[in-house]
Amino acid sequence: MSDRMGPALSEPIFNRVTIIGLGLIGSSIARAARRMNAAGEIVAADASEAVRARVLELGVADRAEASLADAVKDADLVVLCVPVGANGAVAEAMGPHLKPGCIVSDVGSVKSAVVAAVAPHLPAGVGFVPAHPVAGTEHSGPDAGFAALFLGRWCILTPPEGADPEHVAKVQTFWRAIGSNVEVMTPSHHDLVLAITSHVPHLIAYNIVGTAADLEEVTQSEVIKFSAGGFRDFTRIAASDPTMWRDIFLHNKDAVLEMLGRFNEDLAALQRMIRWGDGDGLFELFTRTRAIRRGIIEQGQETAAPDFGRRDAAGQ
Amino acid sequence: MSDRMGPALSEPIFNRVTIIGLGLIGSSIARAARRMNAAGEIVAADASEAVRARVLELGVADRAEASLADAVKDADLVVLCVPVGANGAVAEAMGPHLKPGCIVSDVGSVKSAVVAAVAPHLPAGVGFVPAHPVAGTEHSGPDAGFAALFLGRWCILTPPEGADPEHVAKVQTFWRAIGSNVEVMTPSHHDLVLAITSHVPHLIAYNIVGTAADLEEVTQSEVIKFSAGGFRDFTRIAASDPTMWRDIFLHNKDAVLEMLGRFNEDLAALQRMIRWGDGDGLFELFTRTRAIRRGIIEQGQETAAPDFGRRDAAGQ
Repeated sequence: MSDRMGPALSEPIFNRVTIIGLGLIGSSIARAARRMNAAGEIVAADASEAVRARVLELGVADRAEASLADAVKDADLVVLCVPVGANGAVAEAMGPHLKPGCIVSDVGSVKSAVVAAVAPHLPAGVGFVPAHPVAGTEHSGPDAGFAALFLGRWCILTPPEGADPEHVAKVQTFWRAIGSNVEVMTPSHHDLVLAITSHVPHLIAYNIVGTAADLEEVTQSEVIKFSAGGFRDFTRIAASDPTMWRDIFLHNKDAVLEMLGRFNEDLAALQRMIRWGDGDGLFELFTRTRAIRRGIIEQGQETAAPDFGRRDAAGQ
Repeated sequence: MSDRMGPALSEPIFNRVTIIGLGLIGSSIARAARRMNAAGEIVAADASEAVRARVLELGVADRAEASLADAVKDADLVVLCVPVGANGAVAEAMGPHLKPGCIVSDVGSVKSAVVAAVAPHLPAGVGFVPAHPVAGTEHSGPDAGFAALFLGRWCILTPPEGADPEHVAKVQTFWRAIGSNVEVMTPSHHDLVLAITSHVPHLIAYNIVGTAADLEEVTQSEVIKFSAGGFRDFTRIAASDPTMWRDIFLHNKDAVLEMLGRFNEDLAALQRMIRWGDGDGLFELFTRTRAIRRGIIEQGQETAAPDFGRRDAAGQ
């Protein structure tokens, strides 16, 4: 798969790229930018001394700084890769040290709240192009990252009103260079779409794993041990980073509650079908959702491999 | 992985094994039994002429019969691999043709309803040991099967009261031979455990994919195209066989409604945490579910590979 990233660029898109927060996403951006020569110099900033040491050990950045002021000095692109709730404080601390012409971006799964938290702290002459790479795994930390994480995945840019089109174009070029498909939409539409395709699914996965654990405790019997396809997928989702997901739910509250309301209405209808034995109604929905899955596979966002997350059993 | 199935048995456990319904599960049992020499002769029965022809083409059975009477004649083990709702009618049709000493089993995901539907049609002298191999993919049909499907997975046996322990032991030996771990429990406990670990997760996956499709239609915008980890896993689950799942929900109604009730209570509590900004409550649940995931990986029922179903992106 690494081959599919194609040849490196002959010259960098940005001379100096500073990445703040070297977790799964931040370290993957660093790795991908290095492999593709999308950045002349890569500077890492992380509050954790252990992470900074590990980043240098892994060779994913040229420098690792504890001070935000040192890290963003003379940067042409600064990418915030911290939990959504931390963006405001980071922007406030680094704002005065950004050079004119610098572009700030982020990778948050929530966009309206990030725009509201970050934009006020950026000085005039600094661009702001929020981004959300729709990619990830349930693992965290600098060791979890890999260069091909964004390959063939969507990166959604949500420039606030009045953003400089040249800034948007340059950030778009950067994400395309490291393998993403790029789409531009408003922050609020992004938040609604992601609420139903990502945030509510995560919430539900967390919820059902919790419900099953309670049942295990109450019945004093092994429940989770027999988990099959359905549940194992849910436990994988429910193993995602707790801090990141807490922040997402707190910062995309309105869209999540709206989508949860629709989900609950639909679930109540399904529950009623089961209670009253409406087999035709169930069959009709199940047939429709199967077709949707085929659509996703055709769009190349997924493979048809019958693995349910069990890579070693596929294709036998 | 095929190597891990180990060497074939020196002599078969059953002389003649008849498999009724050659879909994913039925054809996988046939393949596994053949590879392990667990059956002297494998007879396939399927109502579909196309399936019978394909089964012979694939070489997964020695004979393929349209008539149930012909198929079960002199069989030592008969395994019903039809949708749960069809078991009663099949049992009624084949019952008079079973030889004394024959053992009947099935693979249904629901057990109390299967016991109630099948047992009355079996003549005296015929054993009945229902089974549920907790394994599968979202694909269907004889081509979807593979010999290693059951390897390292649980197969739950739910003998009705008064079942002959020797029959139970023999069916257990058969499932172990084709790679399963075997556990014995009552039909009603099975149905409750599977409701929360499999049936409700599937229902929720079907539901959320439907909710997202509705949003796409209403907003006339692309929603599903941006589906990330969470949602893509749900669409895979929601692509499972519609007939099979309709039957499961109709035949495990009480346990599913009970578990759905618990799920809804817990979800309401989570929804409230989001509305009132209870970050600590969210963080606590998310941390707890992450630990459960680790438990499953430690029990060997899952790998830690960070693939979210994307096999080609893992390990980069």
